[in-house]
Amino acid sequence: MSESFEAYRAERARLTELVLEEGTKTTKRFFNLDSAIYRDGALPARTKELLGLVASAVLRCDDCIRYHLDQSVHSGWSDEEIHEALDIALVIGGSITIPHVRRAYGDLEGLRETNE
Amino acid sequence: MSESFEAYRAERARLTELVLEEGTKTTKRFFNLDSAIYRDGALPARTKELLGLVASAVLRCDDCIRYHLDQSVHSGWSDEEIHEALDIALVIGGSITIPHVRRAYGDLEGLRETNE
Amino acid sequence: MSESFEAYRAERARLTELVLEEGTKTTKRFFNLDSAIYRDGALPARTKELLGLVASAVLRCDDCIRYHLDQSVHSGWSDEEIHEALDIALVIGGSITIPHVRRAYGDLEGLRETNE
Amino acid sequence: MSESFEAYRAERARLTELVLEEGTKTTKRFFNLDSAIYRDGALPARTKELLGLVASAVLRCDDCIRYHLDQSVHSGWSDEEIHEALDIALVIGGSITIPHVRRAYGDLEGLRETNE
Amino acid sequence: MSESFEAYRAERARLTELVLEEGTKTTKRFFNLDSAIYRDGALPARTKELLGLVASAVLRCDDCIRYHLDQSVHSGWSDEEIHEALDIALVIGGSITIPHVRRAYGDLEGLRETNE
Amino acid sequence: MSESFEAYRAERARLTELVLEEGTKTTKRFFNLDSAIYRDGALPARTKELLGLVASAVLRCDDCIRYHLDQSVHSGWSDEEIHEALDIALVIGGSITIPHVRRAYGDLEGLRETNE
Repeated sequence: MSESFEAYRAERARLTELVLEEGTKTTKRFFNLDSAIYRDGALPARTKELLGLVASAVLRCDDCIRYHLDQSVHSGWSDEEIHEALDIALVIGGSITIPHVRRAYGDLEGLRETNE
Repeated sequence: MSESFEAYRAERARLTELVLEEGTKTTKRFFNLDSAIYRDGALPARTKELLGLVASAVLRCDDCIRYHLDQSVHSGWSDEEIHEALDIALVIGGSITIPHVRRAYGDLEGLRETNE
Repeated sequence: MSESFEAYRAERARLTELVLEEGTKTTKRFFNLDSAIYRDGALPARTKELLGLVASAVLRCDDCIRYHLDQSVHSGWSDEEIHEALDIALVIGGSITIPHVRRAYGDLEGLRETNE
Repeated sequence: MSESFEAYRAERARLTELVLEEGTKTTKRFFNLDSAIYRDGALPARTKELLGLVASAVLRCDDCIRYHLDQSVHSGWSDEEIHEALDIALVIGGSITIPHVRRAYGDLEGLRETNE
Repeated sequence: MSESFEAYRAERARLTELVLEEGTKTTKRFFNLDSAIYRDGALPARTKELLGLVASAVLRCDDCIRYHLDQSVHSGWSDEEIHEALDIALVIGGSITIPHVRRAYGDLEGLRETNE
Repeated sequence: MSESFEAYRAERARLTELVLEEGTKTTKRFFNLDSAIYRDGALPARTKELLGLVASAVLRCDDCIRYHLDQSVHSGWSDEEIHEALDIALVIGGSITIPHVRRAYGDLEGLRETNE
């Protein structure tokens, strides 16, 4: 798992660099905005990561779930808190989200093992 | 606005009652589950409302946004905190969410006026 | 309810006629194909209406739900059978489909009253 | 029709103003970006309007379709060109887009009458 | 093909077990509900599998399509009946479902070979 | 990259053949319609490819993006024009499309290298 996680992080970094090098000013502005929304503001950054996680889960984007799961663990959210957030995604988004929630549990297990 | 909000609440209540009267056991179990996920647990109920709001916004469901906006205001979230949550929905879900975010701002204005 | 159902049917018919008059050959071919898939074949037409109903519900299209609900009632499906089909949509599609399922129950009630 | 179009434009303008007054810096930056992508660049603005129209149609956002239809007509696209663009949305997005395509034909008829 | 199908079944089973072990009571209740909707009731279980297949196809979830295809074959649906169900998904969901329908035909071929 | 592109093209061709051999008349008619919409008409074929690309990107279908990217390059669209089209998809569809846009940039790089 941590191996595939590493591979995902590396490929993600390589392609993001490519987009930022090749893309237009608008592309860059959009990527900047996408970072800006997760910074501390009226809401703390860690709450925003959880919002990002649930939004990614209901929209069924594995890459996005993975990213926000990683950030959520680093922000100090416990497994139980993350499971409750995923429950919300599961019930709002329905059983069509199950394959993504299953993979999220697998990723979470991997992330905890790596950090031990 | 508060008028249309009242009409929405009444119609919503009437139809929910109809579903719970007519539907199967499974229908009822699903509706119960949909209430259960927003109760206090490892995460406080008010955080869960915000998660519900963002999930509803990226999935572009006006009725759902309206419901969670109402709950979020009653949970004590400030306008600024709600705006930051909606920013996350806006950037994750894209400009296709703008009509819904616009209506959410309209609803929020109406909710604040009603509560004054 | 039956009034709004009538208004919906009339507007639907007016606009369909406009599309078929103004649209391209491709537009017409697509509309023909969309009728063809609900005809008796290896699967009976009435089973296909139920498939259309569930697909419309998980995709959250009120107009499409309404149309297939109307057809399903005319195909002789009972309320209980339709409720079980909607349960599948509810659990697969999640609570984001609730507003649509609520309206479907309202429409179904209206359709039964009209037919009495 | 042109009446409902006027009402839609007025409500849209009122709520956009509210969002820009009340929203965060991020909200404003996102709205700016959403205007920037339709300006002349390597691709002419009018081609971009057509891209916006098809994207809005497959994502089934009536408000967005309406906006880009209005812009597409003002950019000089003929009915036939717009119908072919909508055919692409219809076939890619499937019959679930039909209610939106139907309304787009109705709007287009209204827009042409207003401009005569 | 049957090899990848086996791998998919094994990984699916491993992760489902993990979710049920680690998840909350709500998670378990949702998984139970997701099994309950496919049991014999007013509608027979085999009709419900077909409803699940079409819903999964229009929502473009490969894992879900695979699961319901497997169940549909075991419920005794013929290839021709399954193709007609997939036609409904194809026309309702549009050409964006083609990659999933293509993989479904590949899976179906593999399932038939395995069962011979 | 060009290797994975070749593998994708071969698997795509194999499965399309399977669908056309095994599928119903309706399946074939739908596939024909899906080819027809990209031919020269009131709008030139190359504009239609760009419309197909943006629709595929906002609907987040990697296979479809890949196909239309390939066609767009063969139609003579420059990198800059394609980047602007992808910007529209990015802003309309939101950051949930980023993983797909990232892969599109990777594919585009591979396509240019292959053609040199």
